[in-house]
Amino acid sequence: MSDLPVYRAKLLPEWIDYNGHLRDAYYGLILSYAIDDFMDHVGLHAGYRECTHCTIYTLELHMNYLREVKGSDEIEVANSVLDVDRKRIHVGCRFACARSSDPVATGEVLLLHVHQGERPAAIEFPADIGRMLESLKLTGAARAAWGPGSREIELKRRQP
Amino acid sequence: MSDLPVYRAKLLPEWIDYNGHLRDAYYGLILSYAIDDFMDHVGLHAGYRECTHCTIYTLELHMNYLREVKGSDEIEVANSVLDVDRKRIHVGCRFACARSSDPVATGEVLLLHVHQGERPAAIEFPADIGRMLESLKLTGAARAAWGPGSREIELKRRQP
Repeated sequence: MSDLPVYRAKLLPEWIDYNGHLRDAYYGLILSYAIDDFMDHVGLHAGYRECTHCTIYTLELHMNYLREVKGSDEIEVANSVLDVDRKRIHVGCRFACARSSDPVATGEVLLLHVHQGERPAAIEFPADIGRMLESLKLTGAARAAWGPGSREIELKRRQP
Repeated sequence: MSDLPVYRAKLLPEWIDYNGHLRDAYYGLILSYAIDDFMDHVGLHAGYRECTHCTIYTLELHMNYLREVKGSDEIEVANSVLDVDRKRIHVGCRFACARSSDPVATGEVLLLHVHQGERPAAIEFPADIGRMLESLKLTGAARAAWGPGSREIELKRRQP
């Protein structure tokens, strides 16, 4: 398991949709804030961005909506490093709420380290941050148990 | 190609992140509003929901962020029905902006038709809506050309 801090979110009334649930997009906003927290934790914070002109771009996101979330719920997001290479981080986000023993949602994001010059260009992590990310990476049973994960979305037909 | 209406979004200042770009989560909010438009168009509108107590739940979302989007941009989202069965719709959303000839993002969502009774339960589309959805489904070359689509997120290593 990772020792990354858990991100906590109270739901705002304007995030609730006509079904009385947290609107799908606001899971994404909570995840986005949780990733900001993660970046601060691993040293990719505002000060780093200012000194280096390097930042993180999101390349991909996959959400699985697993349980209904209502306006009165509070959400906790636990981040895990699922994989990392010299320029990219694959982060998994597990959404929990007190009403449910199972995760209410899971999300995966693919992040790219970018130097914002005249033309933005992918760039390697500084060595210390790279080592920290490697040390956080889930392995073995913890990685295998993480999910449900991203996939190619398709409708599988059952026999009628 | 589909003849579904295009959804247009002006970007709000609070949607722009510390990189000067549209924050990843707000692509999801624009997509969510575009899906509301799509539901209205195919008859799954507020009146339908009120009369039938049936609605749509989002099961999954996959976003591909392809180009930078800035605060001054306007976004157009074109929806396509990628697949449909008796209870589910697989919708593809292509994000365009005037500065780019290529899509700036693509998103896929998997939607489930649900009756909200004491316990929410998946339920078949009414026959007329089912027929309309079938008639909108992309086929052949148009379906094959749609993308980039959803996938299992992973870091593929290049040789050093």
